[in-house]
Amino acid sequence: MRGFGMHSVGKVGWIEKDRPACGPLDAIIRPTMVAPCSSDTHVSHGGSGPHENLILGHEAVGIVDEVGSDVVTFAPGDYVVVPCVTPDWLCPGAQNARSTSHDVGPFGSFKLVGSKDGVMAEFFHVNLADANLTKLPEGVAPEAALMIVDMMSTGFHGAEVADITPGDTVVVIGIGPVGLMAIAGAALRGAGRLIAVGTRPAAIEVAKGYGATEIISYKHGPIDAQVRELTGGAGADRVIVAGGSADTLGQAIRMTRPTGIVSNINFFDITDKFSIPALDWGLGMADIDIRGSFCPGGAVRMAKLLDIVKYGRCDPTKIISHTFTGFDKMPAAFELMDVKAPDLIKPMVILDA
Amino acid sequence: MRGFGMHSVGKVGWIEKDRPACGPLDAIIRPTMVAPCSSDTHVSHGGSGPHENLILGHEAVGIVDEVGSDVVTFAPGDYVVVPCVTPDWLCPGAQNARSTSHDVGPFGSFKLVGSKDGVMAEFFHVNLADANLTKLPEGVAPEAALMIVDMMSTGFHGAEVADITPGDTVVVIGIGPVGLMAIAGAALRGAGRLIAVGTRPAAIEVAKGYGATEIISYKHGPIDAQVRELTGGAGADRVIVAGGSADTLGQAIRMTRPTGIVSNINFFDITDKFSIPALDWGLGMADIDIRGSFCPGGAVRMAKLLDIVKYGRCDPTKIISHTFTGFDKMPAAFELMDVKAPDLIKPMVILDA
Amino acid sequence: MRGFGMHSVGKVGWIEKDRPACGPLDAIIRPTMVAPCSSDTHVSHGGSGPHENLILGHEAVGIVDEVGSDVVTFAPGDYVVVPCVTPDWLCPGAQNARSTSHDVGPFGSFKLVGSKDGVMAEFFHVNLADANLTKLPEGVAPEAALMIVDMMSTGFHGAEVADITPGDTVVVIGIGPVGLMAIAGAALRGAGRLIAVGTRPAAIEVAKGYGATEIISYKHGPIDAQVRELTGGAGADRVIVAGGSADTLGQAIRMTRPTGIVSNINFFDITDKFSIPALDWGLGMADIDIRGSFCPGGAVRMAKLLDIVKYGRCDPTKIISHTFTGFDKMPAAFELMDVKAPDLIKPMVILDA
Amino acid sequence: MRGFGMHSVGKVGWIEKDRPACGPLDAIIRPTMVAPCSSDTHVSHGGSGPHENLILGHEAVGIVDEVGSDVVTFAPGDYVVVPCVTPDWLCPGAQNARSTSHDVGPFGSFKLVGSKDGVMAEFFHVNLADANLTKLPEGVAPEAALMIVDMMSTGFHGAEVADITPGDTVVVIGIGPVGLMAIAGAALRGAGRLIAVGTRPAAIEVAKGYGATEIISYKHGPIDAQVRELTGGAGADRVIVAGGSADTLGQAIRMTRPTGIVSNINFFDITDKFSIPALDWGLGMADIDIRGSFCPGGAVRMAKLLDIVKYGRCDPTKIISHTFTGFDKMPAAFELMDVKAPDLIKPMVILDA
Repeated sequence: MRGFGMHSVGKVGWIEKDRPACGPLDAIIRPTMVAPCSSDTHVSHGGSGPHENLILGHEAVGIVDEVGSDVVTFAPGDYVVVPCVTPDWLCPGAQNARSTSHDVGPFGSFKLVGSKDGVMAEFFHVNLADANLTKLPEGVAPEAALMIVDMMSTGFHGAEVADITPGDTVVVIGIGPVGLMAIAGAALRGAGRLIAVGTRPAAIEVAKGYGATEIISYKHGPIDAQVRELTGGAGADRVIVAGGSADTLGQAIRMTRPTGIVSNINFFDITDKFSIPALDWGLGMADIDIRGSFCPGGAVRMAKLLDIVKYGRCDPTKIISHTFTGFDKMPAAFELMDVKAPDLIKPMVILDA
Repeated sequence: MRGFGMHSVGKVGWIEKDRPACGPLDAIIRPTMVAPCSSDTHVSHGGSGPHENLILGHEAVGIVDEVGSDVVTFAPGDYVVVPCVTPDWLCPGAQNARSTSHDVGPFGSFKLVGSKDGVMAEFFHVNLADANLTKLPEGVAPEAALMIVDMMSTGFHGAEVADITPGDTVVVIGIGPVGLMAIAGAALRGAGRLIAVGTRPAAIEVAKGYGATEIISYKHGPIDAQVRELTGGAGADRVIVAGGSADTLGQAIRMTRPTGIVSNINFFDITDKFSIPALDWGLGMADIDIRGSFCPGGAVRMAKLLDIVKYGRCDPTKIISHTFTGFDKMPAAFELMDVKAPDLIKPMVILDA
Repeated sequence: MRGFGMHSVGKVGWIEKDRPACGPLDAIIRPTMVAPCSSDTHVSHGGSGPHENLILGHEAVGIVDEVGSDVVTFAPGDYVVVPCVTPDWLCPGAQNARSTSHDVGPFGSFKLVGSKDGVMAEFFHVNLADANLTKLPEGVAPEAALMIVDMMSTGFHGAEVADITPGDTVVVIGIGPVGLMAIAGAALRGAGRLIAVGTRPAAIEVAKGYGATEIISYKHGPIDAQVRELTGGAGADRVIVAGGSADTLGQAIRMTRPTGIVSNINFFDITDKFSIPALDWGLGMADIDIRGSFCPGGAVRMAKLLDIVKYGRCDPTKIISHTFTGFDKMPAAFELMDVKAPDLIKPMVILDA
Repeated sequence: MRGFGMHSVGKVGWIEKDRPACGPLDAIIRPTMVAPCSSDTHVSHGGSGPHENLILGHEAVGIVDEVGSDVVTFAPGDYVVVPCVTPDWLCPGAQNARSTSHDVGPFGSFKLVGSKDGVMAEFFHVNLADANLTKLPEGVAPEAALMIVDMMSTGFHGAEVADITPGDTVVVIGIGPVGLMAIAGAALRGAGRLIAVGTRPAAIEVAKGYGATEIISYKHGPIDAQVRELTGGAGADRVIVAGGSADTLGQAIRMTRPTGIVSNINFFDITDKFSIPALDWGLGMADIDIRGSFCPGGAVRMAKLLDIVKYGRCDPTKIISHTFTGFDKMPAAFELMDVKAPDLIKPMVILDA
């Protein structure tokens, strides 16, 4: 079968591979829609280390093509939603109460692209189908479901881990697609004032639509100083880091008030180094938590977020800025993600049109 | 001074009293707007025991008329928001991490009407002004603030204590003003499907506006059976009890799935008795929590909820169904609350027009 | 093979059955030690409904006799610890953040005796061996491990769910083996004063050894009044219900202070009915939680509790009052449990001597 | 009156001052026992910025000498326990649910030495006596209470914030008096394996007595590598930082497993800078929390910890290595703390012998 991926670090293109084999508990999916993610381009440039001959992509919805002999809930032909994180629920590592995303070590539950071929192919493999797949429910468009599998799940998770209490002043740093979903998620956890940090006009519009009450930009000075000024010196209650460089973490801490929480959902580079003065963190005693989490996976997570969409709480399709049609358009969509065109938020590709 | 209250159980009317004295940390407030609450009518009928010569009312905004010698934040003339719960922060009972509302015993922090004269008078007393009052911020109408001090604070608290996770199926039983605010609060904690239980047409409209996705009524059969049916037998993830009789608690438990939470904010009668079959509660082992909480108080609670309104997350004035103008209209507003006219949601009285 | 169980309600004895079949992810265990539990006797009398021809017992350690083709961690001959709760981790119901014990409905994860033959046999079946079994670690005696699989896991869970903060005054109602482990668990969560409710002399000694600071008995009057008196009227911060009748829940609520928590781990009878005056529960608004939970299962739970024993925090073998030796002694041990001899705490049977 | 303090940075000695004035809600205490703390020596060297003419010391028990006119619970002659943190409960900053220790900014509730004269004097001042003082209960020795006011409160807090679940593998870095109390606290939250990092023989003995199961030392190589090796590569579940330099935080993160928590209670220097490779923090996505907290204060905190001692859970006097007798011995005790003699754990001074 044919897939799009990386031949080696820095070199992407079509790859010919065997169709994946289906274990007794697994499923083979024929994707109908996929979306490239900055994590894919990050990986293609070696950001998580060297890889060869790897099909990219971890965001997809599609049709079940084959199920293993012991799968009970799904059958070929089912239209399914596939979380980007598919824990091995048979692994004790997935029994951790704080996160099931690290089954065999850091992000071990991130298998598509993480430890096997991804979704940008004619077919892809999903482990433990009964526990990880969800049928596309009536009332949810497939492109909305596609925006759930990573973007909404990760962005909302940033807001959940920030432990927002009703009326909190929340800052979201970064208004790429994940940051935008973090804004929507923060509003749906009860944020009062909601300050977004970003510059791209198209994204700013969406940020406001999702509930941002003010937009600030690094172009107008250090963002921590701006937040301090906006809050009368107090700082924000919660800060969600959904973009930026290694310096951003320190800025986030500096804009957070004592008793506040910094919630990171940004995927830092393997070469990044944080440099943080102790004073900025209250000499270690200001009750400022620094949390950094990975998107939860599994069927129940998807079912819950699908209900968020189905019952009209949030429309994640507002982050889709570019729609391509046809399997052959995957390279173009990927390249658009890679160069981050000025009007880009999130591209997607309809494969089965 | 003149106030409206109860002469004895069952007998309300105008009461003449001395203006309250102001301690060194306290404030005397001249109310500009008040709202009668069903708790006031409940008390007037003896629902919390016998009382005599007690001014009623615990929901008010107003103007500071006098401050004690040690008050630092407020001065006469300030327009302030007064939480219905004003803890004695000097009492160790207010240091409890789970709730500050029980300073000297159950609901000890509920002082207005609870243990002293209420707000339906020319003047009323607030303990610990610096810790309990908040200035009305720019951008928030006083009638919106009036709906915050108890209705929104209590309703939102029901949703917070329910510990809603994004996408949960939530039921709110009762669509009086507190139930309606619980619906709004549940939506702002991330509820997916949101089933409201109630019958009054005016309230149903508001419930939908606040985010209810379905309305059910006891007129169509047992409400627990209806919720079970709507959820394919599974039951709801979270149930907020904001109205009903002693039987309602059992119904709430029966409509909750294993691992679910029942969050009660209903003020039961002193003569009520719950009768619950163990089987309905999973023989005690279904991980269904039954929580019953009292509205939190204090200045910070008010400031946070004022931000909810200021930043456009929720408009609590939608629950105001009747507005009276003039100090002399307090009895009429109170009586409307007492008889619960069919089109009533919440009455308020503008005193200073 | 031969097993001990119930032919029908009220009629126990030896049962001849086929050795259970082993699925590809499962294991067949040859028990080396088992312990009858009051839940087994409860079931034998029809307390959870009618059953026929069911092998009883859900507490065992043993030797792996056979593993399915897809099991990776275990091999025949491994000495393993078997949690009494073995969730179907492939079932989305086990992905619930509040409890994994209700995979397909209330206590669905309780499979041994709950939905298949139990452990009091020559062989028994364990689903999803890799996720549910743990090897007996060096430094832990098998009889200690046997006391972990249900008694310690359930008792400690009662203390965990009670959400004890350091220095809290905690009451544990019931000093059967689970209550005793709840006492030990409460001490290891930081209880200060620890009042146990019980009467049996042998159990009282063990209760004190595990950290009970006072013992009260229903023989000296209503236990809620006694706790109120001991605490100067205030009530306890946390109450763990580990025994008693339907009335016990109401007593527990009455002895709990506002902001307190009642944590139930008692298995009530299918015919029990709770009758609770609203006033005892602060009219629904005293911030008293009523929680009722089921013991968590799985390999990680066992590994954690085995470390509690291995590192000397708690010796659960103190609850073993009677040790039988020989497969043929299972009926005698079961009968002892059933009649609850005065000096009984917990019996166990060594099968392989 | 006479007190011991700093004339200027680096210069300590006797200071003559007026006896502090007592506000209407406050109390003046005559200390009977005090203990110098490394925070005091830290401050004397300018570690928190320049100070002049400041009486040092924030750990004391003593006799109430005077109370303000509005104090209701205490009277001259009462033997009281004084928390080192005394929040201004009238300040809305003390209403924060995550911590009451930052009333008017970072550590604002730390007033003794923090923003006024400390306790090493003939008399000292306590704000809001009713809310901050506790009577010494029967059954608790005053020197035990003295070890509670900061050492136990801070050390236990480190364990509480670490959110230990029963059986967790916990590391405590630093076995000074706070680290030792963190070890005791971790054991009382249910730690299984408990690895302490330190070198001083006297402290090592106490660490083992409080529940440390292994001791490692930086003298034998990088401590993060040692923890990794001891845990078979996995890392610890929880790490409490109770000592060390700016590098220690990075080491703590590196020895923590995904889903783990680093809980800092170390007071870093105003010139410290953390330098942490993103990879060590799982590229920001390993669900490793970094929490840094300040000791909670107030009367209820003290009452709870006094119960821990009264009911025999923990004997904090084991950390007292040197006892001086006589007011004039304060300089000697302070100097011992300053030079950190090899056999020092914690010095105390009995003033009233």
